[in-house]
Amino acid sequence: MTLTGWTLPQSDTGRAAILSAPPWHYSGEIISVDFATDPARVAALLPPGMEPAGDGACSFVFADWCSASDLDERVRDDPARGQYKEAYAILYASFGGKPAGRVAYIWVDSDLSLVRGLIQGFPKKMGSIAMTRAVALGQGGVRKEPGSRFAAHVSSLGRRLCTLAVTLDEEADKPYPRGIATPLVHTRLWPSIDGEPPAVHELSRAELAGFECGRVYSGPAELELGASDFEELDALAPTSVGRGFVHSLAFSVVGGTVSRIDRAEQPGTEKAGKEKGGAP
Amino acid sequence: MTLTGWTLPQSDTGRAAILSAPPWHYSGEIISVDFATDPARVAALLPPGMEPAGDGACSFVFADWCSASDLDERVRDDPARGQYKEAYAILYASFGGKPAGRVAYIWVDSDLSLVRGLIQGFPKKMGSIAMTRAVALGQGGVRKEPGSRFAAHVSSLGRRLCTLAVTLDEEADKPYPRGIATPLVHTRLWPSIDGEPPAVHELSRAELAGFECGRVYSGPAELELGASDFEELDALAPTSVGRGFVHSLAFSVVGGTVSRIDRAEQPGTEKAGKEKGGAP
Amino acid sequence: MTLTGWTLPQSDTGRAAILSAPPWHYSGEIISVDFATDPARVAALLPPGMEPAGDGACSFVFADWCSASDLDERVRDDPARGQYKEAYAILYASFGGKPAGRVAYIWVDSDLSLVRGLIQGFPKKMGSIAMTRAVALGQGGVRKEPGSRFAAHVSSLGRRLCTLAVTLDEEADKPYPRGIATPLVHTRLWPSIDGEPPAVHELSRAELAGFECGRVYSGPAELELGASDFEELDALAPTSVGRGFVHSLAFSVVGGTVSRIDRAEQPGTEKAGKEKGGAP
Amino acid sequence: MTLTGWTLPQSDTGRAAILSAPPWHYSGEIISVDFATDPARVAALLPPGMEPAGDGACSFVFADWCSASDLDERVRDDPARGQYKEAYAILYASFGGKPAGRVAYIWVDSDLSLVRGLIQGFPKKMGSIAMTRAVALGQGGVRKEPGSRFAAHVSSLGRRLCTLAVTLDEEADKPYPRGIATPLVHTRLWPSIDGEPPAVHELSRAELAGFECGRVYSGPAELELGASDFEELDALAPTSVGRGFVHSLAFSVVGGTVSRIDRAEQPGTEKAGKEKGGAP
Repeated sequence: MTLTGWTLPQSDTGRAAILSAPPWHYSGEIISVDFATDPARVAALLPPGMEPAGDGACSFVFADWCSASDLDERVRDDPARGQYKEAYAILYASFGGKPAGRVAYIWVDSDLSLVRGLIQGFPKKMGSIAMTRAVALGQGGVRKEPGSRFAAHVSSLGRRLCTLAVTLDEEADKPYPRGIATPLVHTRLWPSIDGEPPAVHELSRAELAGFECGRVYSGPAELELGASDFEELDALAPTSVGRGFVHSLAFSVVGGTVSRIDRAEQPGTEKAGKEKGGAP
Repeated sequence: MTLTGWTLPQSDTGRAAILSAPPWHYSGEIISVDFATDPARVAALLPPGMEPAGDGACSFVFADWCSASDLDERVRDDPARGQYKEAYAILYASFGGKPAGRVAYIWVDSDLSLVRGLIQGFPKKMGSIAMTRAVALGQGGVRKEPGSRFAAHVSSLGRRLCTLAVTLDEEADKPYPRGIATPLVHTRLWPSIDGEPPAVHELSRAELAGFECGRVYSGPAELELGASDFEELDALAPTSVGRGFVHSLAFSVVGGTVSRIDRAEQPGTEKAGKEKGGAP
Repeated sequence: MTLTGWTLPQSDTGRAAILSAPPWHYSGEIISVDFATDPARVAALLPPGMEPAGDGACSFVFADWCSASDLDERVRDDPARGQYKEAYAILYASFGGKPAGRVAYIWVDSDLSLVRGLIQGFPKKMGSIAMTRAVALGQGGVRKEPGSRFAAHVSSLGRRLCTLAVTLDEEADKPYPRGIATPLVHTRLWPSIDGEPPAVHELSRAELAGFECGRVYSGPAELELGASDFEELDALAPTSVGRGFVHSLAFSVVGGTVSRIDRAEQPGTEKAGKEKGGAP
Repeated sequence: MTLTGWTLPQSDTGRAAILSAPPWHYSGEIISVDFATDPARVAALLPPGMEPAGDGACSFVFADWCSASDLDERVRDDPARGQYKEAYAILYASFGGKPAGRVAYIWVDSDLSLVRGLIQGFPKKMGSIAMTRAVALGQGGVRKEPGSRFAAHVSSLGRRLCTLAVTLDEEADKPYPRGIATPLVHTRLWPSIDGEPPAVHELSRAELAGFECGRVYSGPAELELGASDFEELDALAPTSVGRGFVHSLAFSVVGGTVSRIDRAEQPGTEKAGKEKGGAP
């Protein structure tokens, strides 16, 4: 039998696979905060090929997503499938001489998003995420407007990893927050099971389309990073906290480009990798 | 020591109590569907004092709430505390000669809401709830506009209890959907632990303020009720499914009125109840 | 219609109620640690009628329960319904001149247990709980035997509240750990919704039967209490940490006794309470 | 900087990676049921190289695991990390002329297990799982002994997928249930992100060590498979239900062997695959 499906589980129909190939569409609400940390910590988390900016600049970003898939209408149709939240730390650097961001750590609350992220090179783990969202009427919440306070936090295995808040004092059409305006460089890494070097080990970049950013609300921010035996996020302890941002965001991932990471550079590895693609 | 706190746990400060007294504020997004069931089933679920309309009219309502409390700023400030979803079945009847609704069954995904509901007389249990929400930008989701499909479902203990969807074909300022325009009559019931009749057993009605309903989007609907060993919701099987509604909603609960349920009417109970209040 | 059911939701059959009346049966695995805190904090958390011992003695207890109900076979038959974990702090004191314990704070991961606890006077909230459990074979875990380390932790709203561990160095049939050998005095508290004093406000004690404690494994322990905006547990910060205990436990709750708390003692309350029962 | 870590996220220390390389150790409790389905459905779910037995024989297995990792002591030390439940359907077939099993579908409740499974070729998705477990004392649960009923169920996205139960009537040291005595053949599949054929596509088999099976309790069984828009499990509808089994189980995964799946056999693929390894 020929089994089909872009991911496991494969079957004769492919309908049980957790994920279909791109294009994938994302529409969400963002709460983010810029901060700076020890530049040496940023440098320690960049892959070969990325150059640290030296200023220790980072952002922490929360996103509440609705997502859809051109090849699988179920993702948009069932709110339990397409919706999820994620929280991540971006480090700012350069790649090939141009500004580039690196998602060092990221947590999500959906297995679809976990696998979709790992395939792209986002280093996703599961977490519990809460974010203030704007309300349309009444006194049960806040509006997206100056004076309002938007908070967010993420925990994993019962440890609070990041807690942040932004008190809005300004709205503007531009500029876009750095956290969403900077192209990301990921590492796609999939181990072998037979003791060989990684079966997949390559730098990757997404091909995006339909990028839209809503009106950007911003203000002074608070940010705390917490410790966990399983995480290293708190090593990015803020030396200064910049402004925070609240806005809508949408884009589509239509594919990606990759460049192999030479296995000879990997510790304890002597085999040459496969040749594939050029610079991402 | 005098312990304080409107609910347990009490302490010298009262700050650990799960809940403070009203006023409570609610701002949310609603997806609901009207339906009819066997009128005998509606009659079987009404308390003494409520008269069935005889037409078997019901609604199933999903709500995604942000909530706040005048006496506890933490409810609004921490999104993990104030936000929750709930799903419930309303039966239409009359009380004291006027239209009244009865929430026969309701599930929520927050312990704060569970306890706040039980205190008011909502028969809350925990469940897992998903609801389509409108997006502002892009193709990751749908807009609140004609042509869009909004879906919602609730499960408990791994059993799907209700699955519904509305495909919007109309928007209007009025009338409000029946599910939100009908005053509710609840039963406050709290058992004794010493084998005595219930410690609290009274009909209750909320005192509401600040009621606001956003523009009402409506359309043809689908509705399925599922079975569970722990539930009886599927006994309200739809004989017909009416229209569905999508809209914003806000109100405040500022208190409540109660009238005792005579314990002499309770099976296996011979003691007289306390005298308290008049008709709710 | 006469509605039936020991709790909400009531119906003509009573089968949807979240809970049936006692007897309730409990079989579980316990991990606990004795500690001492500032005696003033213990005194601050005791209700009128309980006398502090003055030594600041406390225990923190984790329990992994299977539960059953004589009046509802579904609780034992469905593992999603009867099983749950809980984590709580006990303060040691006296009541009527005899040793008595007070559960100051408690978290559980089941709505059945939450409501069953509140009815008895346990001040339950929801939390996420993890506990080492003994394995029968292999190297995936530890055995209940000297040399093994048993850990446990609880978090709520993404904040770690308690983390503890016991490294076993001894096993014995007696004595039982203090945390399970001390009768508990609870406060049953259920608010009114109409602005009146609490509808239920009484001290309560469980009537237990069938108490069984398995072989007690003990050893030196570690204990950390953490902070949360919604909790006060960290105010019980350990001044010393005693030994920890790992054992099986079983008992049945067959009912309870109550004594009213005079409403005149409540702040802001002038009404006399109802007369009911004697000393618990 | 050289980044290290067997999986993402990589860092200078590798301590944040979700997973370390084998050996991995597993100790757990199993509840399983043998059944038969339409042989054509079994054939439709086998990869090239596996031959259907033609009798439609399958098992559904629930496991409650404690796990450990030689290279990461945190997995065993933190109960939130090493413990998880999983539920899966095995199809019986042959591979290279010998009996072999195929895990067609599997759900777990831990991200560690999800990723560890995908790397081995288990087609894991997240689910909610409940299983009866034996108690040591009292009436809160059942003992692992004749007369006891063990139940289990799994749901995903609010849909119940499998519900089963076994009523024990026999205990024996041998034979082992077929579900654990049959070597498994998996498909390791990891997509490319640049539109190329899968980056990894190979059959894989685990290298096991330290296999131990406890005393096997068995009895007549019940089994129901349910429908979900996202699953195809119900297509394996039982034509007959065999006996069920309850027992302890332990083993270690020390590595794996793989054989590539020729990309020329993949629909829509024209490229030749890489050469790697021999028959698994």
